[in-house]
Amino acid sequence: MFKITIGSKTFEMKTINVTVWNEYIHEQTDPAVAERYPKGIHNTIAEGLQPYNFNIRTATLEQPEHGLTKEVLDQTDVLIWWGHLAHEEVADEIVERMYERVLNGMGLIVLHSGHFSKIFKKLMGTTCDLKWRIADEKSRLWVVDPAHPITEGIGEYIELEEEEMYGEFFDIPAPEQLIFISWFKGGEVFRSGCAYHRRQGKIFYFQPGDERYPTYHNHEIIKVIANAVIWAASPHGAAPTFGNAEPLEDIN
Amino acid sequence: MFKITIGSKTFEMKTINVTVWNEYIHEQTDPAVAERYPKGIHNTIAEGLQPYNFNIRTATLEQPEHGLTKEVLDQTDVLIWWGHLAHEEVADEIVERMYERVLNGMGLIVLHSGHFSKIFKKLMGTTCDLKWRIADEKSRLWVVDPAHPITEGIGEYIELEEEEMYGEFFDIPAPEQLIFISWFKGGEVFRSGCAYHRRQGKIFYFQPGDERYPTYHNHEIIKVIANAVIWAASPHGAAPTFGNAEPLEDIN
Amino acid sequence: MFKITIGSKTFEMKTINVTVWNEYIHEQTDPAVAERYPKGIHNTIAEGLQPYNFNIRTATLEQPEHGLTKEVLDQTDVLIWWGHLAHEEVADEIVERMYERVLNGMGLIVLHSGHFSKIFKKLMGTTCDLKWRIADEKSRLWVVDPAHPITEGIGEYIELEEEEMYGEFFDIPAPEQLIFISWFKGGEVFRSGCAYHRRQGKIFYFQPGDERYPTYHNHEIIKVIANAVIWAASPHGAAPTFGNAEPLEDIN
Amino acid sequence: MFKITIGSKTFEMKTINVTVWNEYIHEQTDPAVAERYPKGIHNTIAEGLQPYNFNIRTATLEQPEHGLTKEVLDQTDVLIWWGHLAHEEVADEIVERMYERVLNGMGLIVLHSGHFSKIFKKLMGTTCDLKWRIADEKSRLWVVDPAHPITEGIGEYIELEEEEMYGEFFDIPAPEQLIFISWFKGGEVFRSGCAYHRRQGKIFYFQPGDERYPTYHNHEIIKVIANAVIWAASPHGAAPTFGNAEPLEDIN
Repeated sequence: MFKITIGSKTFEMKTINVTVWNEYIHEQTDPAVAERYPKGIHNTIAEGLQPYNFNIRTATLEQPEHGLTKEVLDQTDVLIWWGHLAHEEVADEIVERMYERVLNGMGLIVLHSGHFSKIFKKLMGTTCDLKWRIADEKSRLWVVDPAHPITEGIGEYIELEEEEMYGEFFDIPAPEQLIFISWFKGGEVFRSGCAYHRRQGKIFYFQPGDERYPTYHNHEIIKVIANAVIWAASPHGAAPTFGNAEPLEDIN
Repeated sequence: MFKITIGSKTFEMKTINVTVWNEYIHEQTDPAVAERYPKGIHNTIAEGLQPYNFNIRTATLEQPEHGLTKEVLDQTDVLIWWGHLAHEEVADEIVERMYERVLNGMGLIVLHSGHFSKIFKKLMGTTCDLKWRIADEKSRLWVVDPAHPITEGIGEYIELEEEEMYGEFFDIPAPEQLIFISWFKGGEVFRSGCAYHRRQGKIFYFQPGDERYPTYHNHEIIKVIANAVIWAASPHGAAPTFGNAEPLEDIN
Repeated sequence: MFKITIGSKTFEMKTINVTVWNEYIHEQTDPAVAERYPKGIHNTIAEGLQPYNFNIRTATLEQPEHGLTKEVLDQTDVLIWWGHLAHEEVADEIVERMYERVLNGMGLIVLHSGHFSKIFKKLMGTTCDLKWRIADEKSRLWVVDPAHPITEGIGEYIELEEEEMYGEFFDIPAPEQLIFISWFKGGEVFRSGCAYHRRQGKIFYFQPGDERYPTYHNHEIIKVIANAVIWAASPHGAAPTFGNAEPLEDIN
Repeated sequence: MFKITIGSKTFEMKTINVTVWNEYIHEQTDPAVAERYPKGIHNTIAEGLQPYNFNIRTATLEQPEHGLTKEVLDQTDVLIWWGHLAHEEVADEIVERMYERVLNGMGLIVLHSGHFSKIFKKLMGTTCDLKWRIADEKSRLWVVDPAHPITEGIGEYIELEEEEMYGEFFDIPAPEQLIFISWFKGGEVFRSGCAYHRRQGKIFYFQPGDERYPTYHNHEIIKVIANAVIWAASPHGAAPTFGNAEPLEDIN
């Protein structure tokens, strides 16, 4: 946070602290993925977000505490999550730590196969299951809420030549704000951009991003993620208090 | 309403009064439509609904007061609406009468091109505009809320070999319950089953049913409409009172 | 399910199977509660629901499998839940069994202190924490969605002379349908009637019912619970399938 | 819009253009109101918003085109609306102009008795009726969505010593985001902070602000309005296109 004064007006500038988390396995075991994302999906996303002036760090599964120490999470305004093969290897203690941070105001952006992550399932209260197909298939993400800031700078839809199909039924609570619906060439649709509030925190699920495709090199996809960071980092209210409460008015 | 006693238990049986409204122009001017719907879309829908034991009447634009006299509307639990060419010919006075009835608890089911009807636009507060294309095109309506009673008896989707495409952005308020999302072969998606409450009344918009196609001869489409009738006729609460109100508690 | 034919019309009659669950501890340990609810809160609710022609059984914590065997849950259309002191004593295996049944279409009505039950917290994905106060305090439940069937037969509000206060912030996801908001004399408000869908199942949380007060002898409270049973037992759609899916259209 | 470069980072600064509209009648006819708001409610709000660095102009009913020329509205990012006595004197043509601007992305903040304004009723599609009482009565606005940016800097509630009571049932569509619920000493509750999207535009209704009370001199009330301005001015997506659409995919 810093201030700038121009003429008689002073602006508060808040730099958003973003942590991009990746399980970082495919890139180290699959040569085709390694070629596509030589420094890992997390670094491709981080580089894509460079123009947006966030303070970005990355973290991966293999690091101590998966790179998500209490200090890191306390300093994170928005956490971006990519995982696929190793959801079960994420320690419950770290999941609980993220959960508390979301309830206390940290934004969370869950990408693609992260739908099955422990943290997303715990926050949704459902299985987050879905249909899927790997067929190098065209998809098109249609904007269905053009008032939402996450759609800024995007046209009526985003077209991806090749992506993994995710299809309905997607076993999530009805999105509080449904922002994108995807069309897939094979005949399915998917609620592919879904926003939620949980206590003081904001959550956005975004469907694209299978490791087989260069999706995170796509500027429109990065733009949506950047918009989601700004949305998820927007201010929130005070922490509520719970438990036994004295009356505010005379009861008798 | 009548009662049946079986052993020690008494059941109240409510017969739902349904009015199927149709502007009834295409069928009288276009031979192809006349062949498809010889007695009019309204009568095809009414016949389709026969197995569901509703009390059904029909009404059309050309009748006095468009067949929607005060008496008819007062006796209507659920109004089904099909219109296309002549939205502007529906008298404002009748629109106002329907509007009052919806707010006071009458269910309203708006079909297909009824998205541009005066009554739907007035209740939504938006233009209800959309994209469209007539290309004898396959569509598939995916269930995205399988807890909703309107989906009873329907599989994971309904497939229609040929329908008019309606595409996003659909200029409506975000549905309170989004029940169907449609896939169209030409590349679009559409929020095709949308539920709303307005004061004591329930509203359901359902996309299929262009006059060029035999959609209302499709048993699954009729099943959805029947389910929607039952949902829209389900009980509601008391009429609220408005205006200057005495305090219920001692203020001083 | 049975059928009745009257003249040319045949009606399908579905009898709703309700299980009322109670931890049943206060009534066995606190003489004042025992006097108020001599056969337990579960039996008071079951007796209150008699006029509504449900098939009702009860179940309690102390029974084997808490009275919620697989067979019982499979035969339950709607489960009503009251618990307070012993949430942690409900076995995780039984919670998982209930969870699966809700996702597969069983209705769930969570009463009062059940907000802290394992099953409700798991389905909500939040802590479900709140403010509370025991002060024999007047509350008033205002209807804010008079189109909802749960409000049938209720006036503009229900007044309770004495209840426990529950106050905001209530740490739940925003209700999909907010039906009642409570006023408390001591100065708080509470979202006291909240409806959700989870996959094929319907959930209703209803705030009143502390064991210190005769709330479940109140006909309006029982009426709301009966309405909620009918709503939660209303039909649902087919079970979705998940996993790898063949394309429905030619992709190439 | 201007840019600031600090080190290697460049920030885009958008100054929000706010128009505060007031019918400005009470202040010119009622000495008590004139004393409370000597320059009119609009100027009190505008002065209250000074610290937030918006570009603010005001407009009133008596001006040509009510001060809302096409040019003014085109340059307005967020319109704040206060009206009470003269809703019917607002020209339909100006209402239509505002309506188009909201659909095209202008934010709209409707205050207090503006619930009955033509523009709010048109956008809601309902009567927006409610209960009311003038009794110099305490109210308390409870935050029920602390993740929402509109609650930034506000505690768990705002207390107003004296305000007009507005009570349920409030005849609006269920808010897409319900942010505040008010408690009134006389026994009522009210959904007092309600957010909606309409196509590209964002709308916030906020209950406090009867002309009899010094509500717009209250810093917390002004803070909520400032937060709402920032929220309503946040980016939106592209203008959708409507009408006949060529297929994006090969249909045959």
